[in-house]
Amino acid sequence: MTWPTTRLTDLLGIEHPIIQAPMAGASTPALAAAVSNAGGLGSLGCAIQTAEVFRSDIGATQKATNRPIHVNFFAHEAPTPDDAKAARATELLAPYYEELGLGDVPPAIATHFPFDAAMLDAVLAVRPQIISFHFGLPEEELVRAIKDAGIILLSSATSVREAVDLEKRSVDAVIAQGWEAGGHRGTYLSSFEGARAGTMSLVPQVVDAVNVPVIAAGGIADGRGIAAAFALGASGVQIGTAFLTCMEAGIPDIHKEILLKSSDDDTRVTKAFSGRPARGIVNRYIEDMAAFENDLPDFPLVNTLTGPLRKASAARGEGDFIALWSGQSVGLNRAMPAGELFDKLVEEAQSVLQHGNK
Amino acid sequence: MTWPTTRLTDLLGIEHPIIQAPMAGASTPALAAAVSNAGGLGSLGCAIQTAEVFRSDIGATQKATNRPIHVNFFAHEAPTPDDAKAARATELLAPYYEELGLGDVPPAIATHFPFDAAMLDAVLAVRPQIISFHFGLPEEELVRAIKDAGIILLSSATSVREAVDLEKRSVDAVIAQGWEAGGHRGTYLSSFEGARAGTMSLVPQVVDAVNVPVIAAGGIADGRGIAAAFALGASGVQIGTAFLTCMEAGIPDIHKEILLKSSDDDTRVTKAFSGRPARGIVNRYIEDMAAFENDLPDFPLVNTLTGPLRKASAARGEGDFIALWSGQSVGLNRAMPAGELFDKLVEEAQSVLQHGNK
Repeated sequence: MTWPTTRLTDLLGIEHPIIQAPMAGASTPALAAAVSNAGGLGSLGCAIQTAEVFRSDIGATQKATNRPIHVNFFAHEAPTPDDAKAARATELLAPYYEELGLGDVPPAIATHFPFDAAMLDAVLAVRPQIISFHFGLPEEELVRAIKDAGIILLSSATSVREAVDLEKRSVDAVIAQGWEAGGHRGTYLSSFEGARAGTMSLVPQVVDAVNVPVIAAGGIADGRGIAAAFALGASGVQIGTAFLTCMEAGIPDIHKEILLKSSDDDTRVTKAFSGRPARGIVNRYIEDMAAFENDLPDFPLVNTLTGPLRKASAARGEGDFIALWSGQSVGLNRAMPAGELFDKLVEEAQSVLQHGNK
Repeated sequence: MTWPTTRLTDLLGIEHPIIQAPMAGASTPALAAAVSNAGGLGSLGCAIQTAEVFRSDIGATQKATNRPIHVNFFAHEAPTPDDAKAARATELLAPYYEELGLGDVPPAIATHFPFDAAMLDAVLAVRPQIISFHFGLPEEELVRAIKDAGIILLSSATSVREAVDLEKRSVDAVIAQGWEAGGHRGTYLSSFEGARAGTMSLVPQVVDAVNVPVIAAGGIADGRGIAAAFALGASGVQIGTAFLTCMEAGIPDIHKEILLKSSDDDTRVTKAFSGRPARGIVNRYIEDMAAFENDLPDFPLVNTLTGPLRKASAARGEGDFIALWSGQSVGLNRAMPAGELFDKLVEEAQSVLQHGNK
């Protein structure tokens, strides 16, 4: 088995079939450019940005690399306001606001929005080579405009059912997001209880069900994982958590420190930070809220409520209230510059594919 | 990368590093003998057997193959009786007993037991080449007697923490059981909430943490999964669900039928059948009991209570109350004789390792 020139490298116009995951809030222009310049696909998580910040970030990235770039947005359904849930959330969070000296809990309003026509205009103005969505796809008209502009379209599936749906709706490749993955689960059609297949199960079943290339995501953190993904039939991989301890990642230092001392059984999936299930290192907030997750308002309203707690916690250098997003392979994380990590990933994967593990 | 003669094949004295998982109630002498005769390691799940049935099953297996055989037992802690939980369980289950015409719910008493000195005597009398445990290991004296008898000792880890503990307690190899696996989670040291790492995450982290060979389990159902496990650093694999639709598997026909039409998002982990978390196809009983799992008595007391429901459901040809144990790769299951499936697994894995997936 040799290093594959895969259908994915052809499709994306990149040298190595390795995508740095677009992680909203963590994927800086410096991180994306370092990965693209190393021959992979650098990505920006733009879901919680205004159009202005989006333009500034992609401008900085395009200045730092002339290789393909990938931008990611959310395609969630807009939340249904619920006064009872908002009141309950205020009651649950008020003690933490008091403890951190933050005053009153703010109103449960949305501060970021599903991908829309205005954001489409911002995207078409700067023409990234690749766009992806999480939580499904935006409405058909927006999808058609993206395809018509010649931008490669990707989205995440957490089940075979979702992968088949995405292919029908004309994605160019499917990201099969296994249970191991850090951050938000992309689930949008299957139930959250059902769509928990690990990467080892999800990838071959998705490969058998669709004709487009499949990108394996979740639990891939070194060359062994990359080689394993190819064995499962993937045409490429998407790697997130492993890049979070790179110097270019835009997360608080305490988040990086905690990642570097965490292991396989330290993560949990919680709805308590945003209103949707997402994986991070278990901390005081996740433990406290475990019994109340379903009492909270819809995604992304909760995000507005936890924002001040997350910021204050980071400012104190404490991990108690930060969303310490992390996948289950966190025990494999290494602190190094992104370009150096990328080269290592390629070298390790090639070695496993050529010589096996001894 | 070529087909490995691994440390595991040397250790176990087998040709191919593929273990058929010991599945209590499903792994018949015919299934175990077919796999051992094909060059893998056939296994008997003996945890819920009396010493008499154990002797009869292993006798039948040893008559059908002269190759190594593997027997598995449970090393759980004996349950603490709890009258309130027993009363609550009776209340919850009574409507189903009535619906199926089964009379009164039986008392919540244990009908099978942790591995003990009497079972050790039964094992030493027949000398299987390999023994494994689930839910940790039995007390040190019993472990020492097994090792002194020259029987190879294995146990399952669902976290790095557990793998390190098992190595300290002198297992000859660790079975790294990923989140994808069907049936009971082997978790015994980590929390059930934490010990949910998928095979893609668990295997490389365990390989880095222990010196003994690592056997990957969970989500492996065809040659792609076997090749992926080797890429992750495993020395062998254990495969369960894929063997359940073999003609030799001792499960109700309706269980086989349901497996053959199920997919990746159809399984759930439930405590409702036995009192410990186990993965199976979601059915009426699992859905009904989802909110009450923690109200039920300790493992294995619940098993005694659900036994009559499971039997009656199977007799009716319905899956509503059967423990439809299944891993997440169930969409890859094939109905064929075990020896034929085994040959296919070897052939597929060799092909992936030599030529990759195209």
